[in-house]
Amino acid sequence: MNISQKAPHSATIAEKDMANAIRFLAMDAVQKANSGHPGMPMGMADAVTVLFNRFIRIDPSLPDWPDRDRFVLSAGHGSMLLYAIHHLIGFADMPMSELSSFRQFGAKTAGHPEYGHALGIETTTGPLGQGISTAVGMAIAEQMMAARFGSSLCNHFTYVVAGDGCLQEGISHEAIDLAGHLKLRKLIVLWDDNQISIDGATSLSTSMDQLARFRAAGWNAQAVDGHDPEAVAKAIERARKSRKPSLIACRTLIGKGAASMEGSHKTHGAALGDKEITATREKLDWPHPPFFVPPQIKSAWEGVAVRGRAARETWEIRKDATRSKARYERTINRDIGPEIARRLARFRNEHREKVTKVATRQASQMALEVINGATDLTIGGSADLTGSNLTMTSQTPAITAGSFRGRYLHYGIREHAMAAAMNGIALHGGFVPYGGTFLVFADYARGAIRLSALMGLPVIYVLTHDSIGLGEDGPTHQPIEHLAMLRATPNINVFRPADIIETAECWELALAEKSTPSALALSRQALPMLRETDTQENLSARGAYILREAKGPRDITLLATGSEVEIAVQAAEKLRAENGVETAVVSMPSWEKFETQTDAYQRRILGGAPRIAIEAAGRLGWDRWIGPHGTFIGMQGFGASAPAGELYRHFGITPKHIAAEALRLIGRGRKERRQ
Amino acid sequence: MNISQKAPHSATIAEKDMANAIRFLAMDAVQKANSGHPGMPMGMADAVTVLFNRFIRIDPSLPDWPDRDRFVLSAGHGSMLLYAIHHLIGFADMPMSELSSFRQFGAKTAGHPEYGHALGIETTTGPLGQGISTAVGMAIAEQMMAARFGSSLCNHFTYVVAGDGCLQEGISHEAIDLAGHLKLRKLIVLWDDNQISIDGATSLSTSMDQLARFRAAGWNAQAVDGHDPEAVAKAIERARKSRKPSLIACRTLIGKGAASMEGSHKTHGAALGDKEITATREKLDWPHPPFFVPPQIKSAWEGVAVRGRAARETWEIRKDATRSKARYERTINRDIGPEIARRLARFRNEHREKVTKVATRQASQMALEVINGATDLTIGGSADLTGSNLTMTSQTPAITAGSFRGRYLHYGIREHAMAAAMNGIALHGGFVPYGGTFLVFADYARGAIRLSALMGLPVIYVLTHDSIGLGEDGPTHQPIEHLAMLRATPNINVFRPADIIETAECWELALAEKSTPSALALSRQALPMLRETDTQENLSARGAYILREAKGPRDITLLATGSEVEIAVQAAEKLRAENGVETAVVSMPSWEKFETQTDAYQRRILGGAPRIAIEAAGRLGWDRWIGPHGTFIGMQGFGASAPAGELYRHFGITPKHIAAEALRLIGRGRKERRQ
Repeated sequence: MNISQKAPHSATIAEKDMANAIRFLAMDAVQKANSGHPGMPMGMADAVTVLFNRFIRIDPSLPDWPDRDRFVLSAGHGSMLLYAIHHLIGFADMPMSELSSFRQFGAKTAGHPEYGHALGIETTTGPLGQGISTAVGMAIAEQMMAARFGSSLCNHFTYVVAGDGCLQEGISHEAIDLAGHLKLRKLIVLWDDNQISIDGATSLSTSMDQLARFRAAGWNAQAVDGHDPEAVAKAIERARKSRKPSLIACRTLIGKGAASMEGSHKTHGAALGDKEITATREKLDWPHPPFFVPPQIKSAWEGVAVRGRAARETWEIRKDATRSKARYERTINRDIGPEIARRLARFRNEHREKVTKVATRQASQMALEVINGATDLTIGGSADLTGSNLTMTSQTPAITAGSFRGRYLHYGIREHAMAAAMNGIALHGGFVPYGGTFLVFADYARGAIRLSALMGLPVIYVLTHDSIGLGEDGPTHQPIEHLAMLRATPNINVFRPADIIETAECWELALAEKSTPSALALSRQALPMLRETDTQENLSARGAYILREAKGPRDITLLATGSEVEIAVQAAEKLRAENGVETAVVSMPSWEKFETQTDAYQRRILGGAPRIAIEAAGRLGWDRWIGPHGTFIGMQGFGASAPAGELYRHFGITPKHIAAEALRLIGRGRKERRQ
Repeated sequence: MNISQKAPHSATIAEKDMANAIRFLAMDAVQKANSGHPGMPMGMADAVTVLFNRFIRIDPSLPDWPDRDRFVLSAGHGSMLLYAIHHLIGFADMPMSELSSFRQFGAKTAGHPEYGHALGIETTTGPLGQGISTAVGMAIAEQMMAARFGSSLCNHFTYVVAGDGCLQEGISHEAIDLAGHLKLRKLIVLWDDNQISIDGATSLSTSMDQLARFRAAGWNAQAVDGHDPEAVAKAIERARKSRKPSLIACRTLIGKGAASMEGSHKTHGAALGDKEITATREKLDWPHPPFFVPPQIKSAWEGVAVRGRAARETWEIRKDATRSKARYERTINRDIGPEIARRLARFRNEHREKVTKVATRQASQMALEVINGATDLTIGGSADLTGSNLTMTSQTPAITAGSFRGRYLHYGIREHAMAAAMNGIALHGGFVPYGGTFLVFADYARGAIRLSALMGLPVIYVLTHDSIGLGEDGPTHQPIEHLAMLRATPNINVFRPADIIETAECWELALAEKSTPSALALSRQALPMLRETDTQENLSARGAYILREAKGPRDITLLATGSEVEIAVQAAEKLRAENGVETAVVSMPSWEKFETQTDAYQRRILGGAPRIAIEAAGRLGWDRWIGPHGTFIGMQGFGASAPAGELYRHFGITPKHIAAEALRLIGRGRKERRQ
């Protein structure tokens, strides 16, 4: 079987013609849309044809077959390369009509490849550098699955096509360092070395020796003529045998084949024009109308699918024969089972009884100890803040180049690559990745966090040191705008638990998600256990709930999250004791969950009395919950360097200030209502 | 003079003793604060003592002398290294009492070095990788100043101390590629190669050959024993002579000198403890109490200041003798003069008369053509999207390794390094940097944008393709949460102009800022000129203003920004024509500017009628302006790939939908007010 994988499928149809099919489909689709990027598909058509025709094992009839090779188009703007191939090898959702609807509303052929939008798209790309970094996560997951189930069940490659942009972006540095360190030998990157970027020649902005750079990172690196199929094939064969991840620099001409524009940056991001395309048809001896591929060429491409299907069927037989089949399927389906919820409920009850006072980052570690004991699918990690994020537990030995049986990744000081790798691990299937950094450094991972949300991946961000409460490290480390940044992002749960009970609840909710990432914002400082009622129900699932109800009609409602809930409770007690003011305290661990509650529930929780929101962060977004008669107590600008308690006093986030504002509001509120 | 710069200042006091002064000040300060990072200052004390004692030219009596050497502590957690040196060489604001107040409220000795917080801090560091990348911008500015004024007025080095974290972060890749490409020969980085990061040995997470990596990027790279003063000195001498930027890998022991903890990651981020410090006093033969430095050692350090002062005075004489003195001073003080405002006022008037309809990104380029013609201090650039961001004008030839007389930086596909380099250019003095990318890729630059705001630097971000209006590129390229992310960040102006007039106004406002960065969110699609009144007053300076007033009492108020203002105007016309509803349209190019207006002005603009906010982005933050009876029309989730017009229709951001909502609101609002 190895031989048949490596030999060209079709001897009668030249790969040159198969590549030209890609070229014309790309030219025609971009021309019709009058939008898109023909240059890259044309430039890489030769190399990618070799990759698919001789190596890649995918089965269009079962696109998510777990042991398929992964193909990641990191240079996502060249999406027509992928769509053309998907059409040619027979993906059911990619008939020619989709190609001729390129970039139109509702078409499968979106501007950039979007995971879940069409079959067989392994990851969303377009933001440069994400694909190659996500692929590192896929390759890690492949090695982990192989370590657990053996090479008969998991033995595939992760191929990447990357452009100059992918290699210039900083995230690529983080990713290739990590990949080289872990010796991800089944990761193979084809670099479209066309020496052209949008502004013009790459020599305008870079003098990097990429081969030397990748070798410095522990990669195997080769350079070939990207238009020479045999050279490309030999390089891929060598790469497949390497004990390291591999870079193959394919020297290409952007827009290769174009009659007069070949090699010009003008082919990068715009239609070539009818005249140029007509001339190119003549030059390449392609006497076919737009959106037409001669049957013998189509048939040659379909051979890729035939080979892939055979490989898949052989794999199914192997899988059905293995004793670990059931466990394998639970794993690949990421089935963490019901045991976690049961154990976490027990955990909550136990700590309510013990009245456990810990920082929520520590509560998180205690909950993780339970979770990681109940499933072996969770894969922890931290961007070199393990002892601060508290993301490691007794069940999670480190993953190393020599052993992928571990459950913890030392991601290094690489927040962005960590987030992208977690996306890749989740996309690959088999594991639930969580990774830690400080909340403020979510900034560094923003590009990949957004893709977690856009792709709907159930990855979990453990973001500790979530406010000025971290103290002395000062404003560079104190998040102010980060909760707003995360809350503004569609499809991500932002959890900010107030105590150990809520922390366990939020972990349970995060783990229950199938298509939404979660961010847990956790305190550095210790916080008391606040829950008075039974812990049977997961109250955080409501997003917001009444933690302390007024004893009579409410005079005021305090809304708070995380470490400020304790302060709100103290303010409420003070108001009752000193002023006879009846205050309800609402804990809001998740705005997103609260938004999904009924209007009636929301009204009941928020109440009709004036509201004060308290959060040691910026105000943006809070007005939605405060309503017309309320106010906000939090941060107006950046923080400062001092012990946490002093900072809270300095910035007025204190029971005393809250109580004073409450009294002012009640006065004003009553007067207004009288008018 | 060259000789005296390179020879050790003090022959009688060994540099070993000078370095030990740093060590004990760091140990003592961290111990007293019980918070901080002694390991790095102790490990790098020897190398940095050599750097200061033999090379660096700074003058504590005039810390912002323009031709001083720049020293950037990229590994900002080692802040006590900097504070100790500033104390030892006699900075007026760094008496011993500040060192003993390390990390306390109000102290100059903040947890991480903060620009502007104490004298002589060249840039804020702490978020790893920022310092080295900001230094690239400083070194670019140095070369630009030298190109304009000659080496007699500008001839200094930029020295950086970086740690493993700085070199692991992705931004470092972008920065060193750019620095190598531009051959920034006066940039010298000392890498604290201590093989330790927070999680433990760096071998947990990296196998990078850093010397090979830097050489691949076009750097001179050397490795030395960081505890051997002569070896360090020779390496610095070689680096100063190199035609390339230089890396000096200083192999060190973290916590060097500590009695029992030397070399352990436990010295990184916590106090060593009284016992260990006492033992270290014995081991290093330092029989002095905490916070005490023997006079002869202090005096040796003060020699650095003496040499620096002499160099500065010599430079002053040269400057006073040059014919270009006045021009030099205008430049270094970033004095763009009043001419820009006059010309922009003319520009606005001209285009109001012409009723110019262009995309605001194009309007921005047209305004820049005026601006760049009126000053030569603006330095443009783009992260490889020059033709899309439209940041280049006729006055801005590219800056290259061979010529720093240009005014445009091809930053490459490196948003993060672009932002950091702009920070460095602004910090150096002499120029006003602006740089372009797509708004969505502000994500990639977040870490450095935040530092622009925290440091209060007047850099300008040109963020085009600012909504679903970019169309076919789809959700990966369509910003949704990015306006909220920027608005949530303290101290940054977010401008979203609606037409060519507002675009010119916003550029004028951005250029007038002294201590606030600005982000201009600009459309890809063409927008009509909307201003009907006289263009004499810069209405965008108000943040929001009534673009179209109702003819009688307002039934409804529409709030909109940027490309949605046109749609609001159309909705208002439709409501009047079809429903007899009187609508005011408020354009809100800047929330931040509007927030600084009087309550009376804000009330007048927002009015008492129900409000609808319209913005092709997420809702977060808008409730503040909408008030209790209003609603929001915009995006609920991510965008899609299709032509812009179709997307606006699909997502309901249309005059028709606005009108329908207005009618619904008026009904509801009247009913509510009647109750």
